[in-house]
Parts: sequence; structure tokens; C-alpha cells
Amino acid sequence: MTINYQSRLTALQNYLQEQSIDIAMITDPANVFYYTGFHSDPHERFLALVLDGRDQAFTLFVPALDKEIADNESYVKNIVPISDEEDPFSKLQMELGANVQYIGLEMKVVSMFRHQRLQDVFPDAGYTDIQPAINKQRLKKSRNEMDYLQEAVNIIEKVLAEGIKKVKVGMTEAELAAELEFLMKKLGAAGPSFSTIVLAGEKSALPHGTPGDRALQNGDFLLIDFGVITNAGYCSDITRTFIVGEATEEQRKIYDIVLKSNQAGIDAVQAGVPLKAFDIAARKVIDESGYGDYFNNRVGHGLGIEVHEEPSIHENNETIAENGLMFTIEPGIYLPDYGGVRIEDEVYINENGKAEVLTTFPKDLQILT
Amino acid sequence: MTINYQSRLTALQNYLQEQSIDIAMITDPANVFYYTGFHSDPHERFLALVLDGRDQAFTLFVPALDKEIADNESYVKNIVPISDEEDPFSKLQMELGANVQYIGLEMKVVSMFRHQRLQDVFPDAGYTDIQPAINKQRLKKSRNEMDYLQEAVNIIEKVLAEGIKKVKVGMTEAELAAELEFLMKKLGAAGPSFSTIVLAGEKSALPHGTPGDRALQNGDFLLIDFGVITNAGYCSDITRTFIVGEATEEQRKIYDIVLKSNQAGIDAVQAGVPLKAFDIAARKVIDESGYGDYFNNRVGHGLGIEVHEEPSIHENNETIAENGLMFTIEPGIYLPDYGGVRIEDEVYINENGKAEVLTTFPKDLQILT
Repeated sequence: MTINYQSRLTALQNYLQEQSIDIAMITDPANVFYYTGFHSDPHERFLALVLDGRDQAFTLFVPALDKEIADNESYVKNIVPISDEEDPFSKLQMELGANVQYIGLEMKVVSMFRHQRLQDVFPDAGYTDIQPAINKQRLKKSRNEMDYLQEAVNIIEKVLAEGIKKVKVGMTEAELAAELEFLMKKLGAAGPSFSTIVLAGEKSALPHGTPGDRALQNGDFLLIDFGVITNAGYCSDITRTFIVGEATEEQRKIYDIVLKSNQAGIDAVQAGVPLKAFDIAARKVIDESGYGDYFNNRVGHGLGIEVHEEPSIHENNETIAENGLMFTIEPGIYLPDYGGVRIEDEVYINENGKAEVLTTFPKDLQILT
Repeated sequence: MTINYQSRLTALQNYLQEQSIDIAMITDPANVFYYTGFHSDPHERFLALVLDGRDQAFTLFVPALDKEIADNESYVKNIVPISDEEDPFSKLQMELGANVQYIGLEMKVVSMFRHQRLQDVFPDAGYTDIQPAINKQRLKKSRNEMDYLQEAVNIIEKVLAEGIKKVKVGMTEAELAAELEFLMKKLGAAGPSFSTIVLAGEKSALPHGTPGDRALQNGDFLLIDFGVITNAGYCSDITRTFIVGEATEEQRKIYDIVLKSNQAGIDAVQAGVPLKAFDIAARKVIDESGYGDYFNNRVGHGLGIEVHEEPSIHENNETIAENGLMFTIEPGIYLPDYGGVRIEDEVYINENGKAEVLTTFPKDLQILT
């Protein structure tokens, strides 16, 4: 498995040429990684992949202290280090000249502050948003990328299989989360793709709750929502909900509705229909069961080199689904002060426009004892 | 220990009134936490604390699925949930009316895209940057906050003390990083404050390297740079460099220079002098030893509710140091293909303008066997 960075860069280059954009400045670390293979969180420092369309040259501006890693990892080999004492915008101007006419930026990423600084050093330039074009490029995942994404799923499913063996009454959510994140690294992941969610009992009703001192008790829902980022830089995201000890009839009923909703969502996935259809199919099951008020978020989100990326699978998204999309289907029912169930899978629309489900961890209700 | 959110909000309110800003929109999750106690990573969703100066009302706009947590955690109790299908900017307009004249924003945080959307719904508004005022407020840490920050330091030092007991020749960097992050949660942290850096041998020369399959060998430098975020939401950050097995004369020499540099940096800390003085004092030791080319980053950075915040301690920062600042002092020598040493402490300028060092983990060279 290797990624063809040159073809990614060429596709971007072609787009910029079509649009007569003379400079593209890419600063989202995920996009820099997408085009160069260099993965870095620059914090507040300046990191940018710059394409100068006038001479078709790519330059990677990196914090000086990341220079050596960038040299090793980046496909783009023209690397300009910027030390903490330097002004990155003066350096940009020095490298590119002040006479820049039309700059392409990721407008959801570039701050108003950086926009102002760019206006200072390129006073004659106009600006356009290249983020939609980049997102469109990243949206369609190749089979090659799917292999990397499958690796991320495989690791997290191994973690889950090992992790639930450690579940015991009396253990806290935070302790279980720590065990799971330890297993991630032990089983070969770079780390969690987001902060591991382990919620027990009534806390499972919080779609974004944080694991805490709540100890597992018999009769609890146990909701685990987590994922890894692999060393290759790809993310997974899966949720399973278990019951500790013994399940009530009501718990079984709620679980069963969410499972049917999850399956209905997955069954609806195909190319050629609006994305909203997947949300609506899953939502219909929950609505018809009378729990519609307790499923108040979208059914899924794209993922890839980030754990949240396009597309957004919500009930108003009219965009037509196409081959190469990769996203979660994760309906849930969240009853305040009672508990919640979410079942989340990862689905890919393959070369034939059909759904391929990457996640294989069993979904029948499991009672952990 | 409790935080007085009302006094923080009042200070902001007074500033806005002085500046005749009628609406302030705060979207940096760290700033929202600072003013409300509500900690959330909204990913691409919309999260904002809005002060309407016209009626002195605070409103917290949160993703619908975080509503319940926000109700529990936020000091600001007027909470407006926004579901995934809603447009947050239309909702803002609905709540505030279109007739807004002057909006205060964090210009390093608000993207060009959001700026455009704001212009759409508030067509007559002018914009001003309130980030410097917020940063100034956050910059000065109270004794109360220091207690929280000390807790974060205490945990990470316990983790380090326990963690180095696990070091063995043959163990990989990634395995040790996993053990350390497990210990963080076990010892009461919410999690790492940034991705744990464990680097061995020649890899320790990378100031921002990633732990990988490199196995520990006798004679390696072992650089550990890590921190925790506590459940109360405060960060720590510490680096110690060890040697595995046996140290050479050259390794001892380099270690000794960095230790002297670290001490010189700390000794220079006091209120009333420019911040650059701390960098220069530490840098001078390394320069005079002939290793100046191998220390190519600033000596430190502020931290608090974020692991990187103001002030930046670099050799050109003329800002005068004042009471209440909290930052790292972390000189290093990084020799490509050979290895590196960094020693990082956390320092507070207290009520008397004197340095208080929060970190207490021993700094004499430790050989791990």
C-alpha cells in the first residue's frame, strides 16, 4: 500500500490552473498530510503547503523544529523552515514576491488574523476558497485508501474484543477507557482518533459524555464509542453498546430498535440517491417506534484522515451519493436520566455503487458478566 | 478550589462596554471553557458564547447533542441548542436581531468562512478583535488557578516516577508511551494534554518526533516530553531526558550543558524584565558551549487551560514580564543522527514577582538500568 502523492498534487495543480489561481496556500494539517504525507500538529506555529502556479513549484513551509521530520516524511522536498523568531508572512513574501494576484485558501481554516496578515504582504491579491475543491478530492476514497482505513477498523475491533474481557462490575468508566487506549497502542495504533467515550448507566444518554468516576453496575448500559489513528495516518470510529449483568425488557426493546435503525440506514446506502436518504431510513425506524424525540443528531459523518470529514449524513443533505464515499451510520436513542444506546458502523460506497461495511464486530445484544 | 466565572465574565463585559462593542462572539473552545466551565470539542459544529452588550445577556450556543452536558457544566445558564440540520448563523440572527453594529471576535480563531457568514446575517456590522483582551485576561493566572495547574504537574510527575520503573532494553518507544498514557488515567488525569513524546537514541534529536518501533538500547538517550489534562481542565507539560544503561562522556557533557541552560533560564525569571531575557539567559549557556546551532527553538511557552498559550518566551519578545505568568523553560541540544537532550520545567511568576517552579522531578542525570 502506498499513496500516490504526485497524482493528488497534479489534480490540485490542474484545478488551480483552470481557476487561474496563481498561489494556493494550504494550512489545514490534514490537507498538508493528504498532499505530502507529512503529519504534524503545528499548534499555533505556521505550517503551509504552497503551490506557486506561476512556476508550478510546491514549497512546504514548516516550523524549524519539524524540519528534519518533514525532510523524511514529505513527498514535497522543497522545504522552508521558519524559526520561532521569524514572521512567516514576511518569509512567504520573500519566497513568492509581493506581486501575487489571486490566492486560493481554505476559508474554513484560515483565520481572519491570517487573512489580514496576507493582505499586508500581498496588498494587491484577491482571495478565493479552494477548500470545496480539496474536500471534493478527499471525499472520494480510493481502494488503496480503503485498505488503510480497514487497517484502522481492524485494530479498533481487536481492541474492543480484548477490552470487553476486562469489564467488571465496580470498575469506573475512566478505568475502562484507560485500558482501551492502552490496548490501542499495544495492538499497533498510533493512538486514539478522538478521546475514548465509555459511558455507563444513565450517563450513556449523553452522546458526547466524558468517562468519569461512574462505576459499572449490574443492569447498566455500557456505551463504548472510540477509534484509532494508525501510524499511516488513517482513522476509525465505532460504537457498540453492551449491558452489564442483566438486561430489562425495556433495555432489550430500545437496543432492538436502534439495531434495526442501524441496519435500515446501512441497507439504504447506495450511490445515486441523496445522502439524506440514509438518515431518513434510519430515523424512520426510531420515529415509528415512538422514540423519535430521543434521536436528535445526524445519522453519520465522513471519516478518513480525520475522524470527522465530509460528507455529513443528515436529513436535509440533498447531495447525491457517489462511489468512493466513506462514512459512519450511527443512530441512537438517548433517554435522559435513563440511558442510551448507539450502534455505529463504517460504510464505504464501492466501485459498483454498493455499500461495503468495514466494521464486523457483532451487533447482537451482548450481556457482559 | 473553585473558579469565579462571574468575575471573569464581568471583566469581559467591562472591556466590551469600554470599547462600545455591542456583541461579542467567543468560539475558541478554550475561551468558552474559561468563561463558562463548559469543556467541549465541537469539531466542525458551532459552539459560541455570545454576550449581547445591549441587554448585558450571555447566551451559550451549543451543538444540540451537548445540551445536557452544557446544562450541567456551564456557569452561563441561558443555553441555545443547535441541531445538525440548523444553520447556526440564521439562529444567531434570530436570537440577536439583524441590527448589530459592532461585533467583537477572536480573529485568530474565526475563519474567513465564518466571517463571511456573519457578514451575511449582520450586513451592517463592523468587526474588531477581542482576542488580545481575552488573552490578556487569561495570561495572568490567579493563585487559585495555580492550585489546579499544580495538580496537573503533580499527576504527571507521579506518572514519570512510576513510568521509568517500566523502562527496559528492547521495549519500543511506542510501548513506553502507551504505559505512560495508561498511568496518566490510572493516576487520575483526564488524559494526555498532547500526544506523549517518547524518543530514544538518535530519534531524541527530533524536538517533535513521534514514538515508534525504535527499541530502547543500552547507551540511548531517552527523552520523555508529556503532560496531562486534569478533570478540572488544566494542563501540565514536562520533559526529562534519561540515559539507558551507560552514558558516554559526550552524553554527560551535553546533558550538563542543557541542565545549566535550564537553570540559567529559570534563574533569570522575574517580573519587570523583558520576556526575551529568560530565553537569552538559557541560550547563552548553550551558545558559549559551542552548541548554539543545535538549539533552534524558543525556550518556552505559556500554558494553562491549553498546553500552548501566551506568553511565548523567545529571544525577540520585548514584552515585560509581570506577576501571574505561567510558562515552560525548556532548552535543548539536538544533534542530528546522534540524539538530543531537553529539560523542561514549569515556572510561575508569583505575587512577589519571583519565580516559583512547579515541577520538582529531579534533574540530575539518571541512568536507567
